[in-house]
Amino acid sequence: MIKFPKPIQDLIDQFCKLPGIGPKTAERLVYFLLKQNKNEIDEFALSLNQINNSVVKCSICHNISEKDPCAICADKNRDHKLICIIAEPHDLAAVENTGEFKGVYHVLGGVLDPLSGMTPDRLKFDDLLAKLQKNKVAEIILAFNPDMEGEATMIYLNNLLKSFKVKITRLARGMPVGSDLEYTDEITLSSAIKNRKEM
Amino acid sequence: MIKFPKPIQDLIDQFCKLPGIGPKTAERLVYFLLKQNKNEIDEFALSLNQINNSVVKCSICHNISEKDPCAICADKNRDHKLICIIAEPHDLAAVENTGEFKGVYHVLGGVLDPLSGMTPDRLKFDDLLAKLQKNKVAEIILAFNPDMEGEATMIYLNNLLKSFKVKITRLARGMPVGSDLEYTDEITLSSAIKNRKEM
Repeated sequence: MIKFPKPIQDLIDQFCKLPGIGPKTAERLVYFLLKQNKNEIDEFALSLNQINNSVVKCSICHNISEKDPCAICADKNRDHKLICIIAEPHDLAAVENTGEFKGVYHVLGGVLDPLSGMTPDRLKFDDLLAKLQKNKVAEIILAFNPDMEGEATMIYLNNLLKSFKVKITRLARGMPVGSDLEYTDEITLSSAIKNRKEM
Repeated sequence: MIKFPKPIQDLIDQFCKLPGIGPKTAERLVYFLLKQNKNEIDEFALSLNQINNSVVKCSICHNISEKDPCAICADKNRDHKLICIIAEPHDLAAVENTGEFKGVYHVLGGVLDPLSGMTPDRLKFDDLLAKLQKNKVAEIILAFNPDMEGEATMIYLNNLLKSFKVKITRLARGMPVGSDLEYTDEITLSSAIKNRKEM
């Protein structure tokens, strides 16, 4: 088995480490790159080096950014009394893209999942508590995936933040746009009925 | 839309250039990398640089290799009178992995597909003819995908090589291992019937 020259095999192995990329796909990607101009490969390598050298974590919200503090935390036009707690930096992009949210963020760094080793000490809870003690916060929005780990994290956060007498909200559950009544699961549909709105 | 810091967006764009990777997958891959150790990202960048610096094309068979000539062309134990013509370097790996073939290769660099601009002048036909004029070749195996472009390339090669009085063979068509009679297409099944073998 296997006859690839070492540099090719090394790059295949690198691609294989990425989520959702198996050996066959990795092979295809590497052969695609080999057909490209050398400059293109150089640019790719450069981009990788760039994220190592110019991406930092914002010390306030733990988002990934070019500067510390990040553009959102440094923006005085945003409402710093409104904090949206999210699991990962990519969730921030999703919330930002709606254009609905004008507050600031706090990136927890994951969700509670003790079986996979994600215990409370590995998430940025301490930082969040320190932030609440220092600043006046009016509302906290919990924006987590409505799955088991997300729900557990929200329940944990709700208990943790009870003593601060801050308003804690969560994203509404209901039917997504373009979905089909017939195929909507019971929990989602019952949430949608409970939270029905007047027209 | 879009709130990614420039280095992240650049890397997303680089991943998007790869086949089968869309913006959402690229985003996921970049966020995955951002969660890794900086060394891991460095290694990835290094691997990319490596294939730029240490991978060459074998001047004899046009395969991708660390040396020129490649290990297969330089191997005196292989039968240099038996040439397997393939479209791309990754087809070589597939044939090699069977362990059935002990000859040498000639990588055409693609298949004929005039509508996509793959005309005969862009493939390594001249080189193949020069090789046949210079060396004694006993048999040529055409190992192309049995699709329209592959078949067209094999017909073209067959016409081109007729004058050399060399034995030209092609890979057998038939039912792949583990397939189902019921779902086999007619052309494959009729090939399998025509080429039936005594037990």
